[in-house]
Amino acid sequence: MSAEIICVGTELLLGDILNSNSRYLARELAKLGIPHYYQCVVGDNPARIKNVIEVAIARSSILIFTGGLGPTPDDLTVETLADFFETPLEERPDVLQDITDKFARRRRQMTPNNRKQALLPVGAEVLPNPTGTAPGIIWQPRKELTILTFPGVPSEMHRMWEETAIPYLKNQGWGQEIIYSRLLKFWGIGESALATKVAHLFDGINPTVAPYAGKGEVRLRVSAKAKSASEADRLIDPIATEIRQIAGDDYFGFDEDTLASVVGQLLRDRGQMLAVAESCTGGGLGAILTDIPGSSDYFAGGVISYANRVKTELLGVSRELLSQLGAVSEPVAKQMALGVKQQLNADWSLSVTGIAGPGGGSSLKPVGLVYIGLAGPDRSVEIFEYRFGSERDRSTIRHLSICHALDRLRRKLLKISVTITS
Amino acid sequence: MSAEIICVGTELLLGDILNSNSRYLARELAKLGIPHYYQCVVGDNPARIKNVIEVAIARSSILIFTGGLGPTPDDLTVETLADFFETPLEERPDVLQDITDKFARRRRQMTPNNRKQALLPVGAEVLPNPTGTAPGIIWQPRKELTILTFPGVPSEMHRMWEETAIPYLKNQGWGQEIIYSRLLKFWGIGESALATKVAHLFDGINPTVAPYAGKGEVRLRVSAKAKSASEADRLIDPIATEIRQIAGDDYFGFDEDTLASVVGQLLRDRGQMLAVAESCTGGGLGAILTDIPGSSDYFAGGVISYANRVKTELLGVSRELLSQLGAVSEPVAKQMALGVKQQLNADWSLSVTGIAGPGGGSSLKPVGLVYIGLAGPDRSVEIFEYRFGSERDRSTIRHLSICHALDRLRRKLLKISVTITS
Repeated sequence: MSAEIICVGTELLLGDILNSNSRYLARELAKLGIPHYYQCVVGDNPARIKNVIEVAIARSSILIFTGGLGPTPDDLTVETLADFFETPLEERPDVLQDITDKFARRRRQMTPNNRKQALLPVGAEVLPNPTGTAPGIIWQPRKELTILTFPGVPSEMHRMWEETAIPYLKNQGWGQEIIYSRLLKFWGIGESALATKVAHLFDGINPTVAPYAGKGEVRLRVSAKAKSASEADRLIDPIATEIRQIAGDDYFGFDEDTLASVVGQLLRDRGQMLAVAESCTGGGLGAILTDIPGSSDYFAGGVISYANRVKTELLGVSRELLSQLGAVSEPVAKQMALGVKQQLNADWSLSVTGIAGPGGGSSLKPVGLVYIGLAGPDRSVEIFEYRFGSERDRSTIRHLSICHALDRLRRKLLKISVTITS
Repeated sequence: MSAEIICVGTELLLGDILNSNSRYLARELAKLGIPHYYQCVVGDNPARIKNVIEVAIARSSILIFTGGLGPTPDDLTVETLADFFETPLEERPDVLQDITDKFARRRRQMTPNNRKQALLPVGAEVLPNPTGTAPGIIWQPRKELTILTFPGVPSEMHRMWEETAIPYLKNQGWGQEIIYSRLLKFWGIGESALATKVAHLFDGINPTVAPYAGKGEVRLRVSAKAKSASEADRLIDPIATEIRQIAGDDYFGFDEDTLASVVGQLLRDRGQMLAVAESCTGGGLGAILTDIPGSSDYFAGGVISYANRVKTELLGVSRELLSQLGAVSEPVAKQMALGVKQQLNADWSLSVTGIAGPGGGSSLKPVGLVYIGLAGPDRSVEIFEYRFGSERDRSTIRHLSICHALDRLRRKLLKISVTITS
């Protein structure tokens, strides 16, 4: 028994829209513990929809369709399903009444097209659509095969899924055991290096462990099948603990945690304030920090010292240093960090100066060269040099600079224990 | 002859990520005029990947795979393809060298896993990956069947598509008649208001006109089918001109233009510098401005005055005003704009102060209340009040604040003609 998601719509084949319906349904199936191995997209074309049905019924037992339920002639999902399973369509008076009522309520003229939406295959149950005019169906055209259809409009589909499909599927025995996942997050270690360290965990059955990589961030998903969240936690906890021990400080958080939120929490715990001085990131570090509600508890603000004049006048960076060594240099990163910490009277400061490209690089200072300064309460300053590689694009270099800056502060804060005063 | 997109990755089946690769490739295929009727998603499982290959080769002649090229044991796309077509894998010394070089340049340890990425089916061409370690392949395992593979990381995939796949497909005769599109962009007018104004253009066949709406930005896509870009331009130009005349200053640019790039160009034309003072946007305005290469020509920098102390000490905002009226008030926005303009000795300045939420709102000052200050070379200051609505989320309120600030400066700059000195 497994489900297959089939999205019908030529707009998906043209790339006009992102397929957010697939993602929504995939997540929902995972939560209910319904196995799901295939997804398809097909255009509004009866022959091709039939091809997809034929392929799907050979490998899946629950087919979930989205799209193609509208009133226009190119909305063909239900007709094609009926045709494929050689079942006549019949007009459902209750559905027709519901559509008529909705038009009346919206004071809009019902067109003959809309009447088509009341035609459902004989034997199919109505899957009511509380907000739109197109109803779905729940249909078992043959033994061991269930078909559910939804309109393509995400808000309508979500509500129909929640109000009717979930109770139906639970009633069929699904969702007694649910897959719970915890996403562990890492910075400062590559995907393959981490995978090598935890390779012995990849063969587990329950929980399972799988790696993912993004831009610099590596993730391990630990998934457990369980009857309740607490049972899942009991299965996941020991694995998560083992992984954290193996990864050490490269582990930074889980699920909704971000480097910025973790740094924020560490600062909040210590009652300390952070200031930033940004050159190549141009405000992006501040933006990520303040993306988090309540960040004013620990973020004072900063200076976007994009022009050199701002570095000297607002941050006190030496004019001589700038002309001799250039803005992208260790001493300038140092003076930026110290300057902003003093100006904003903060406990900690981060500075970023680098060459984000695509222009401005040289053989000595290539695109991707970035200095990060970290100044602390004890007036110490550390400078970190990164070479992200001139083949990377501007936005990646800026993103990596921001994340590494946050990560440096995170690692530093971890070394300083919190004194809890009650 | 038609193409099928096959995305491999259990993370897609779990709904962890949106399938943006399908959309990107679908659009690219449409541009090249390559018919494309089916898309599939399958997990990292050899038997199921084989099932998908079997289905696809019966109905499509170009199979485009993304995902499953990484170094970990669950990255199986290439092995499974080789196995399906009973072709041995061979280690490519040039690919191995390239991977080794990339690790050396990034000063990271190469693991034995990464060596796997140099194993390609005998007879397949390398589809080089300039930024990541996983190369793709272009392979004709049998007559009338072409397979292209790409990594799942979007930035890597896009570059490989543009640099190698497009030239390859064009060389195969595709893309002789191409759909060219121009995306016209608008700010300050709603989708339906604009659609009503240009409704008479929606019935065109070549070019076609279709509206799209995002977060505050409205777009009209004008698409023409033509043998060359210049022929397409001849078809698109008159329609685009008509739309611009109808929309007036609500039209701000096309294709890759953004509010930030358009403002940047207007400033560059005038030889003027901009500074920013950001409170609720926390650096986001600066980040968007500096996302553009060469923005140092017109962007001096700014102050992230998140804490009130920074507003007074770095921007000279009156302590009395802050305590009497609060940071989110017209006079504070005014003093922030004037203060940063003076401090950074800029021609123009923008200030943003508001309540991004979810907390911090009151009945008098609800979440979504934002003041934008705009100071100009003549020492004039204008303040604009926005009420984005407390039902909007933090990131939307911040995004709208940034865009409206840029739009205010854009409209102001448009009123000042440029004196060209040659």
